[in-house]
Amino acid sequence: MALTLGIVGGGQLARMMIAPAVELGVDVRVLTEEPGMAAQIAATATGDYRDLDTVRAFARGVDVITFDHEHVPQDVLRALVAEGIAVHPGPDALQYAQDKLVMRARLSELGMPQPDWAEVTDAADLDAFLASHGGRAVIKTPRGGYDGKGVRVVSDAAEAADWLSDGTPLLVEELVDFTRELAQQVARRPSGQIVTYPVVETVQRGGVCAEVIAPAPHATGRLAEVAAQIGEAIAEGLGVTGMLAVELFETADERILVNELAMRPHNSGHWGQDGAITGQFEQHVRAVLDLPLGDPGILQPWSVMVNILGGPATDSLEDRLPAALAAHPAVKVHTYGKAPRPGRKVGHVNAVGDDLDAVVYEARSAAAFFGD
Amino acid sequence: MALTLGIVGGGQLARMMIAPAVELGVDVRVLTEEPGMAAQIAATATGDYRDLDTVRAFARGVDVITFDHEHVPQDVLRALVAEGIAVHPGPDALQYAQDKLVMRARLSELGMPQPDWAEVTDAADLDAFLASHGGRAVIKTPRGGYDGKGVRVVSDAAEAADWLSDGTPLLVEELVDFTRELAQQVARRPSGQIVTYPVVETVQRGGVCAEVIAPAPHATGRLAEVAAQIGEAIAEGLGVTGMLAVELFETADERILVNELAMRPHNSGHWGQDGAITGQFEQHVRAVLDLPLGDPGILQPWSVMVNILGGPATDSLEDRLPAALAAHPAVKVHTYGKAPRPGRKVGHVNAVGDDLDAVVYEARSAAAFFGD
Repeated sequence: MALTLGIVGGGQLARMMIAPAVELGVDVRVLTEEPGMAAQIAATATGDYRDLDTVRAFARGVDVITFDHEHVPQDVLRALVAEGIAVHPGPDALQYAQDKLVMRARLSELGMPQPDWAEVTDAADLDAFLASHGGRAVIKTPRGGYDGKGVRVVSDAAEAADWLSDGTPLLVEELVDFTRELAQQVARRPSGQIVTYPVVETVQRGGVCAEVIAPAPHATGRLAEVAAQIGEAIAEGLGVTGMLAVELFETADERILVNELAMRPHNSGHWGQDGAITGQFEQHVRAVLDLPLGDPGILQPWSVMVNILGGPATDSLEDRLPAALAAHPAVKVHTYGKAPRPGRKVGHVNAVGDDLDAVVYEARSAAAFFGD
Repeated sequence: MALTLGIVGGGQLARMMIAPAVELGVDVRVLTEEPGMAAQIAATATGDYRDLDTVRAFARGVDVITFDHEHVPQDVLRALVAEGIAVHPGPDALQYAQDKLVMRARLSELGMPQPDWAEVTDAADLDAFLASHGGRAVIKTPRGGYDGKGVRVVSDAAEAADWLSDGTPLLVEELVDFTRELAQQVARRPSGQIVTYPVVETVQRGGVCAEVIAPAPHATGRLAEVAAQIGEAIAEGLGVTGMLAVELFETADERILVNELAMRPHNSGHWGQDGAITGQFEQHVRAVLDLPLGDPGILQPWSVMVNILGGPATDSLEDRLPAALAAHPAVKVHTYGKAPRPGRKVGHVNAVGDDLDAVVYEARSAAAFFGD
């Protein structure tokens, strides 16, 4: 009997797990939020992932439950585990991806390098933090934020009045004077095996990942080693199973600080579909099924990923495909079956090669065919 | 609206087209012969590909029809084309893949290098051919043969008595004293664009492909050029759309002779899933949809494919997967969701790298985990 993997959530991360699962002979089932989502081809159920009965019914007959996102509530996750269903990553790990205050507190315990941070519940606390951190800081809602949502830079507590009004604690963080952003990916099996990807450079625009260069340029030696150690320590310290992405700040004084975590395949690892011996989607499938992990090595010296954000306003990705493929025969185009909408991630392109400038140019030029 | 590709036939070649189609944002539908086949995940209909009504109903709503195999009858193909349905490869090309006598005659017209051949309908003709070709020859049933079936080496017409008894013409071919077998793949779009893969070496055992080395060792320069020219000339001369594989003999006196043709993705091109910038399955999808073709270049100096033939007798491929993955983290394992059966192609492994001996060793060792 083939192993059966159940994925909760029908977005592009689920979609991109399907191909490597099929290659390995793993049957895939997806619980989608609505019909016609990115992972539709493997959808076997549609419903609300916050509803225990829906998820429980979906979980019947699968060997492992994993996720397209980190939003399945703890009570649902814990009920599944209590019923003997294998859930990876599990609720104990996922709590750190679901609540940024819980995450910060745990990383402090683990001695991970982080921006200064505090939990604030009122204007006085926030103003005190601002006063001791140069008058500006980042505030974050602990839950539900992504792609720049739930994040705000403030220089006065009055700018946070709407978020503070309901008494929910906020996370406030030092505004790090970083020189660039990096991401470190690690895969970990339930039985403990870990593999570590090369650290990559991520370029954000408007809080959303725009480009990734793998490996991060000038990240040989100490920097790469420190990033790898941070990734591995967090994967083990938080008990992550599956893919973990650690978003990092690199500072002018060569420190590395942990920004955010994701416990699933992550945009910073899409390059590996075409540039790594084992891409993150295959690796996640292997890890959550507790299969031996694959070699995370690179196939070419450089890989560059550029997101297709928004997509064309007047026509479709399909309409743009022929011209893009004709101009860039060596670029790999990935689309998600999603309708274009301003700012929405609707696809990405990957390019590989041995000349970084040429690879960046190829990837950016190809992605530009799908823009406005 | 996404492009929609309809694949007739639910075997592993259809299965392996699904992933690259999904990456490109192409919707895939498969007409399978029975439930539970290799390409089940994209199956939208089940039925007999020889029945016009079944194929016609399946073809409704797809942009292009292509194939997992070459067995759809000419009358079905021609009826679809007459109704305005895009069929690639089309019936005019497919006739040469469906009938080896028609193929040989056409390649002779095109001046392609071939073994000496003749059409024979009785024992006297066959004995005459044997007498003028060293007393031994290969006889082939013109239709329906594959993987060594429908092929026999004879030294006396009496050994062909069963095949000659019904009056159907046979193809008889010179027994070529070859030093090795090669395969040349070419992709061609309906609008005429062609891309040419590096010529590869194929190793057959018992008439079935066992291993492929890409590119073929010692095939630089003239040999590779001649093979490429043959592939391109046949693709154009026969009007092939989609992937074409030309199986070749290399002789001790450095001639190259055409052995067989396949007008679809072919076992000799499976290496490209992990070793080429654009693998044959993606290329076939692009070609039949008349999208610009991808770069057929290699990602690493050497790629080696080893078939998993038969599979384990007492347990399943899934049972063998953990040990194989643990021992060979850099090898890519592909299985087809087919039950093991002696001699049956149930999967393959690909390995890539810069040291050919090491890559061969890796691929063979990994495949051996799935044997008896």
